[in-house]
Amino acid sequence: MVILSDWLAAQLDKAGVEPVYRQLLRLMQQAILTGHLAPGTRLPSSRTLAADLGIARNTVVHVYDQLSAEGYVLSTTGSGTYVADTRPDSAAVGPRTALHAPEDADAPAHATTCPRGDMSMRGQRLIDEAGVSAKQWGAFMPGVPDVAEFPARTWSRLQSRLWKSVGHDLLTYAPGGGYRPLRRALSDYLRVARSVRCSPEQIIITTGIHQSIDLAVRLLADHGDRAWVEEPCYWGARSVLQASGIQLAPIPVDAEGLNPGDADLRHPPRMALVTPSHQYPLGMVMSLARRRTLLEYARQHKMWIIEDDYDSEFRYGSRPLASLQGLDESDRVIYVGSLGKLLFPGLRIGYMVVPERLAATFRTGVAELYREGQLMQQAVLAEFILDGYLTSHVRRMRTLYGERRQLLIDAVTRHFGDALPVMGDEAGLHFVLGLPEHCDDREVTAAAYEAGVIVRPLASYYLGKQQRKGLLTGYACVPHENIEPAFATLARVIEAHAFGKRTALLSATQAPASMS
Amino acid sequence: MVILSDWLAAQLDKAGVEPVYRQLLRLMQQAILTGHLAPGTRLPSSRTLAADLGIARNTVVHVYDQLSAEGYVLSTTGSGTYVADTRPDSAAVGPRTALHAPEDADAPAHATTCPRGDMSMRGQRLIDEAGVSAKQWGAFMPGVPDVAEFPARTWSRLQSRLWKSVGHDLLTYAPGGGYRPLRRALSDYLRVARSVRCSPEQIIITTGIHQSIDLAVRLLADHGDRAWVEEPCYWGARSVLQASGIQLAPIPVDAEGLNPGDADLRHPPRMALVTPSHQYPLGMVMSLARRRTLLEYARQHKMWIIEDDYDSEFRYGSRPLASLQGLDESDRVIYVGSLGKLLFPGLRIGYMVVPERLAATFRTGVAELYREGQLMQQAVLAEFILDGYLTSHVRRMRTLYGERRQLLIDAVTRHFGDALPVMGDEAGLHFVLGLPEHCDDREVTAAAYEAGVIVRPLASYYLGKQQRKGLLTGYACVPHENIEPAFATLARVIEAHAFGKRTALLSATQAPASMS
Repeated sequence: MVILSDWLAAQLDKAGVEPVYRQLLRLMQQAILTGHLAPGTRLPSSRTLAADLGIARNTVVHVYDQLSAEGYVLSTTGSGTYVADTRPDSAAVGPRTALHAPEDADAPAHATTCPRGDMSMRGQRLIDEAGVSAKQWGAFMPGVPDVAEFPARTWSRLQSRLWKSVGHDLLTYAPGGGYRPLRRALSDYLRVARSVRCSPEQIIITTGIHQSIDLAVRLLADHGDRAWVEEPCYWGARSVLQASGIQLAPIPVDAEGLNPGDADLRHPPRMALVTPSHQYPLGMVMSLARRRTLLEYARQHKMWIIEDDYDSEFRYGSRPLASLQGLDESDRVIYVGSLGKLLFPGLRIGYMVVPERLAATFRTGVAELYREGQLMQQAVLAEFILDGYLTSHVRRMRTLYGERRQLLIDAVTRHFGDALPVMGDEAGLHFVLGLPEHCDDREVTAAAYEAGVIVRPLASYYLGKQQRKGLLTGYACVPHENIEPAFATLARVIEAHAFGKRTALLSATQAPASMS
Repeated sequence: MVILSDWLAAQLDKAGVEPVYRQLLRLMQQAILTGHLAPGTRLPSSRTLAADLGIARNTVVHVYDQLSAEGYVLSTTGSGTYVADTRPDSAAVGPRTALHAPEDADAPAHATTCPRGDMSMRGQRLIDEAGVSAKQWGAFMPGVPDVAEFPARTWSRLQSRLWKSVGHDLLTYAPGGGYRPLRRALSDYLRVARSVRCSPEQIIITTGIHQSIDLAVRLLADHGDRAWVEEPCYWGARSVLQASGIQLAPIPVDAEGLNPGDADLRHPPRMALVTPSHQYPLGMVMSLARRRTLLEYARQHKMWIIEDDYDSEFRYGSRPLASLQGLDESDRVIYVGSLGKLLFPGLRIGYMVVPERLAATFRTGVAELYREGQLMQQAVLAEFILDGYLTSHVRRMRTLYGERRQLLIDAVTRHFGDALPVMGDEAGLHFVLGLPEHCDDREVTAAAYEAGVIVRPLASYYLGKQQRKGLLTGYACVPHENIEPAFATLARVIEAHAFGKRTALLSATQAPASMS
């Protein structure tokens, strides 16, 4: 048995970086936890230990105080300090359970079924099917606005001004659906720009589309309910829906948008998630006929529709179209949007427009599940909108993105003629560059990444069998002068993959020529 | 049948606020949607209609263009403009389904079971059991720091400086667990202040405790899994867990914290959510013996522990205690915290410390489910911490809150002697003022609200049978001079409710005196 003070003296580094107090505390705790200082052992007096270790008595006193506060030792005035018995209660701990699958309250304890690993099944699936890209900037990342063009100085000026006169109400919790002046500004904006029917009371401020969808799904759908999603669709929506136990029914799209078949129509789901202004990712617009049919179907079968209007501002060559929600006479549509792609994604401010009778419910839901916050940011945004900066910024970016889109389309034509179709280019921050049927768009994506160019493979957006091959190619965040050089790199990668089977492609585009 | 131009002329208000273009567009859309302009009807030429209505031809041209873009009409050059057939496809819409309960894929279409209302069952429960308070400021709201004392000018200065030199990487998406300098600063802070074992890589930045718990539950637990929660516990944790389909097992607490009974111990849950530093809401500290037993139990049964360390900085009269995570040798603890109560709740920045082998998984999870953002805010916070402002602010607030706590305790003593116990006052931003057994603390809360004082009823925090009556009484956000007057108001309300049954209380506190 080693004498405590000898052992401590050997461990302590009085000249070390870590303060002696901390070292001593740590060492004493270790000794007690490992049992080397057994329960009931009387510790030396602080004076004695300090003298033995050659350190200040105060240091030892403080260590003993902390050990006492944390329950390692018991101090009794006049009787000394003793190691407390804090050994785990082995009767409570019990024998090791066989690892078993999700709890069945009726199953006998220690049922032996599949072992549980670290992760849940739904967690593992989320990670396995994750669609988020590791790199989020540069040619040709889709869906990312050119944040370098964001009027940072203006934003900062408005922000500073607000912080000068900030009241507590903007810094603390505030259940209420979001900063009211922002809801009012958004309400006005949406009524004019998107023909959305709403009052400020119907607007719920969220942190973006993911949270909006999550909230709608939790309040309106139960675990196990079905939802129609467009096939293909945004991976983020899919992840959020599945994480809440929603069964996804992928519905094909055609040139007019969502196109449910007879079997689909016979089994009305609880909700449908659609992108009618600009199908994500393929880009078609839902026709008026399909919109009216979908709304009528929703009315008939009490189906909820979540309209994700993610980037409708950027339409090239024609005015933005009216929202689906504006056509809805039956309060079946939950309209969601985000300021992220208009301003900067890091802002994390989005909104939902809900039917009036659900507004109070959604306000409570957002406060209960996520706690509200970011009111300062919302206040800055409200000023930004009211002073006209949102509108002018969007107008400027629409022109800029239009130019970049054209440069990229020209580059495609220069390199490939019309061999590769361009889909969905009438709007948005990306289009889909079609690839020949035999291509593996994930392989092309990986190869492009190696070559320093980012695209996203259409494969990632299909739930079921992939109907089309292609690459989501974004141009918004690519400076004009980078477009041709970056596309030249991408073109080389595509050629290697697509034209490795050269004969097949040539015969698809022109009369066979003699191979040289 | 009315002539189109006559009908339009009667509806148009050329002198009105709404632009003529918009009015005309709206009227034409309405006429088409209602069927008054039947599919196939040829519209008058723009020249004719403009002349008939006495408006500019250009206006009519633009309206026709928009109607065409949206699919209301078909324009053929030379042949005119015709109303398109966009009537809902009645075959697709089908007969009205009987409203039925959550989808069973095998159930026949139109199964007749319970009708579905607007809300889901889980949504309705969330709203019914919502614990969030409508008012979030003033005497005696618990859990709210005094944001009026927040160094706004310093924050704003750091913020402006950062915005001057902002690069795109701080404004856009960035999967990666959060701004690295912030993770490094937090890692250093937590190691020293809370004895948390972590590297920056183990830290995941979230929007606060709700999101942290939500993420952990989704990645580590499946729908139907069980979780131990302290009884009573924070309503927010309960809501988040239930919203993800977790079955809650309420575990009693005693003076040493979580105290599972034999039956509880025989059925190990997937996870346990605990507040060992300062039980929320009752305030006791989990003893070292219980901590060691819990950790050993978790190791034995592969249980996850979520340690919610929500306000451990504000401990009065003794040092903050080490975290439970610091004792854990088996990587079973997920440590979560938030900057909200230290700085301001609207900030919405929190963090999780996860075992190293799960770090990459959690980073992907946060990006996939919520999209990352707020990097600018995280950058400002990192500067704030590194420049020492967090530590000095916390130190200052600890003193301030300590004073307010004492003033409130004195007020309680002045009004009630020791008739009403004060629980959990050693730390935090609130304590629990015990009420006599016969009181209904929800009634007292409602009456206090009417009188202009906010408290929260202990009843809201119990899942099962309420074991104790009391009021969560917060002092942090109450200026010194308001404490006595506000408590005087609360005291009157309590007296009316508690001493309405005067005899019972008197006999509990003193020998019966003759009633006057």
